[in-house]
Amino acid sequence: MQSDTIVALSTPPGIGGLAVIRLSGDGAFDIAGKLFHGKNLSQQISHTVHFGKLIFQNEELDEAVATIYKAPHSYTKENVVELSCHGSPYIVQRVLEALIRLGARPADAGEFTMRAFLNGRFDLAQAEAVADLIAANSDASHKLALSQMRGGVSNQIKQLREELVHFASLLELELDFAEEDVEFADRRQMTLLLDNILSSVRNMLDAFRLGNALKNGVTTVIAGRPNAGKSTLLNALLNEERAIVSAIAGTTRDTIEETLNVDGILFRLVDTAGIREAEDEIEKLGVHRTMQAVQQSAIVVYTFDVTNMNSEDVAHDITQLASGDAPMILVGNKSDGRSVGELQRQFGRPDILFLSAKEKQGIDALKAKLTDAVLQGRTHVPDTLVTNARHNEALRRSETFLLDARAAIASSTSKELIALDIRSALQALGEIVGAVSTDDLLDNVFSKFCIGK
Amino acid sequence: MQSDTIVALSTPPGIGGLAVIRLSGDGAFDIAGKLFHGKNLSQQISHTVHFGKLIFQNEELDEAVATIYKAPHSYTKENVVELSCHGSPYIVQRVLEALIRLGARPADAGEFTMRAFLNGRFDLAQAEAVADLIAANSDASHKLALSQMRGGVSNQIKQLREELVHFASLLELELDFAEEDVEFADRRQMTLLLDNILSSVRNMLDAFRLGNALKNGVTTVIAGRPNAGKSTLLNALLNEERAIVSAIAGTTRDTIEETLNVDGILFRLVDTAGIREAEDEIEKLGVHRTMQAVQQSAIVVYTFDVTNMNSEDVAHDITQLASGDAPMILVGNKSDGRSVGELQRQFGRPDILFLSAKEKQGIDALKAKLTDAVLQGRTHVPDTLVTNARHNEALRRSETFLLDARAAIASSTSKELIALDIRSALQALGEIVGAVSTDDLLDNVFSKFCIGK
Repeated sequence: MQSDTIVALSTPPGIGGLAVIRLSGDGAFDIAGKLFHGKNLSQQISHTVHFGKLIFQNEELDEAVATIYKAPHSYTKENVVELSCHGSPYIVQRVLEALIRLGARPADAGEFTMRAFLNGRFDLAQAEAVADLIAANSDASHKLALSQMRGGVSNQIKQLREELVHFASLLELELDFAEEDVEFADRRQMTLLLDNILSSVRNMLDAFRLGNALKNGVTTVIAGRPNAGKSTLLNALLNEERAIVSAIAGTTRDTIEETLNVDGILFRLVDTAGIREAEDEIEKLGVHRTMQAVQQSAIVVYTFDVTNMNSEDVAHDITQLASGDAPMILVGNKSDGRSVGELQRQFGRPDILFLSAKEKQGIDALKAKLTDAVLQGRTHVPDTLVTNARHNEALRRSETFLLDARAAIASSTSKELIALDIRSALQALGEIVGAVSTDDLLDNVFSKFCIGK
Repeated sequence: MQSDTIVALSTPPGIGGLAVIRLSGDGAFDIAGKLFHGKNLSQQISHTVHFGKLIFQNEELDEAVATIYKAPHSYTKENVVELSCHGSPYIVQRVLEALIRLGARPADAGEFTMRAFLNGRFDLAQAEAVADLIAANSDASHKLALSQMRGGVSNQIKQLREELVHFASLLELELDFAEEDVEFADRRQMTLLLDNILSSVRNMLDAFRLGNALKNGVTTVIAGRPNAGKSTLLNALLNEERAIVSAIAGTTRDTIEETLNVDGILFRLVDTAGIREAEDEIEKLGVHRTMQAVQQSAIVVYTFDVTNMNSEDVAHDITQLASGDAPMILVGNKSDGRSVGELQRQFGRPDILFLSAKEKQGIDALKAKLTDAVLQGRTHVPDTLVTNARHNEALRRSETFLLDARAAIASSTSKELIALDIRSALQALGEIVGAVSTDDLLDNVFSKFCIGK
């Protein structure tokens, strides 16, 4: 099949030393060769670089280095040329214009990776991991994306599908001999097999909450009464982080105003208005907002001033905040100079962490509590976790079909209906790795990529 | 001489498909090889690319393609490795950290190009053109930077220096025979020679005004009374430009809110408060600001409302605005539906351009007037122009020394003093191409580069 040749800037836009413009498709060498004046690109061997000038309509645009990848030994498995020119937006624009006039088509978002997928370089879950890898901004999200790119999630799905196919093949066999009304598979064993598969699917679904939090950051609300020291605590957590970040030269990071990296896990810290008995409508609104933030958070850090509160107040606040299912960390602030034993006796709860945000005492202990709350008993971030909402949704659908199948078996429904449920579950799982895919599905997946990848 | 190995991100910071991290120096292959796991980089031939994994302290950071350039066949003429990894700020940071721990040093701004200069790839004016090329944002500035990179300015300076060296050698000869008191060079001829050189230097200095305007954009003030239609005119000029720019996909441009590209020349349009007889202090301040903008501009576009002004008003305004030496373009706005002949008779000046900003009539004619005002009789942008303020300053110094030399000849001052002036002029010119350079000079030049180039 003849593929058209796509082109895009593959490096980030902006000013820099270099910019790389990538072409992929049957015509890549021909089209690039019309612009690139040096050696004849079509005649060079794969994986070599060549210096030349980019000349369009007798006007020199830039000097450039062309890298040649011959199909199938390229990212897309097509012919690929990468033109490395000066990192000037003006030059990039001129070169892109020229290549488009010479016959290339501007690539859609993720189109290089989509071609790599369509040409069998990797499955869909692995392709999606490429975008996750680029977007990763913490150890944990980086590690999970790399594992998914390596096929971690795909292998789990593949195993589930194999078990289901085995199940389905038994059923299909019975259907083939429908007139004889035989049962090759013991219904009790079938139910056991289904339960095993269901349990695996549910494990993956359960882990999605962790995977999604690790990928996108763990929303962590700091709540408490006015003057409990919430902002001081936020700053104590952030300031050390800022110092670490600013020590690394040569890269620009997105704003870290309210994100905190602890042991490779990214926390999104949300400061809130102080909670207290609302005396007027405006205050009620503030408290309402705080409660909304609490409900949407993955972790709640409840902070109170030990010099100013009694155990009843604390118990009252905890009850008020504990409406969601997010784990809560209890922090007794302004406890410098006080004995922890005495404080524990005063507030009657051993699970309160006493610290001083102002003196930056106890901050490390709080960070340890934060990672514990995320990992929930695990000692480290698992290598493979479902992190992708699309995968989660497909797993949920497969769970529904599997439950339907089990119910059908229990109520001795016709084999055809059981087989239909199993096929639907297989289809849902197949969508994750792209074994089953539609144009809409692919468009939806790859439109989330950046242009040039 | 052993060179340490420098490393930097060479592509723009941010998120993209690819990021290129560049190492240069004797240890480039060794250091990159400790991170890059695939083939042994030191053993590969120059100008080849190799796929591998970046693994640091048993942790995989990314997959990457390594490009090998062996000294002297690289940009810096040193051993160079370019690691092309995923365009993720997080990965870039991790890879840079790893390479620095493995023995590379973070590169200073422009340090790759400084090494290229020190290793004789090009002279200093050419090296500076690399930064200009990256920063170029119009046809004209791009063309001038490319010409300078090719040696356009350097050749002009070289020729001047050769003429001066010839002059100096005659003088030195006389100094060698000082006791005999001979004059090998006719003083009249010497003065003629000096005048020729001075005239060349002055031509280059004169052209700097144009070169600098083309490089940095031509500041163009739109001035006129309130309701003359200045903002409508600005929008009429900009809107068409916006349409052109937005049609080009795949690149991000800096804001073009107030810049206009006409035939490859960049105009920086400045809208001003309307001028009128100030009735209070605040108005006086507005008029004062407008006059300041006029004084700092390269072109003034004076706009008036033909339906609302008489020739005396116009003459009054022109006199008020014509305080600087910037050329003035006269625009009679809101002239739609009126005969140009009649309008010319009414306002008594043939040099007024009558147009309608609202109806977008006459905008092309105004653009032609803008480019004419910049090119001042030239039909197109010259290939070679001094655009660099440092070069301009060095040319000014050489002009001073040349004038001193001529005065010294005229007043029959001692040959030693004439020779000293000539040497100083040679030195000033030599600084432009880097034939004469100090660490301070180089630091100053290359600190204006981006990191990674």
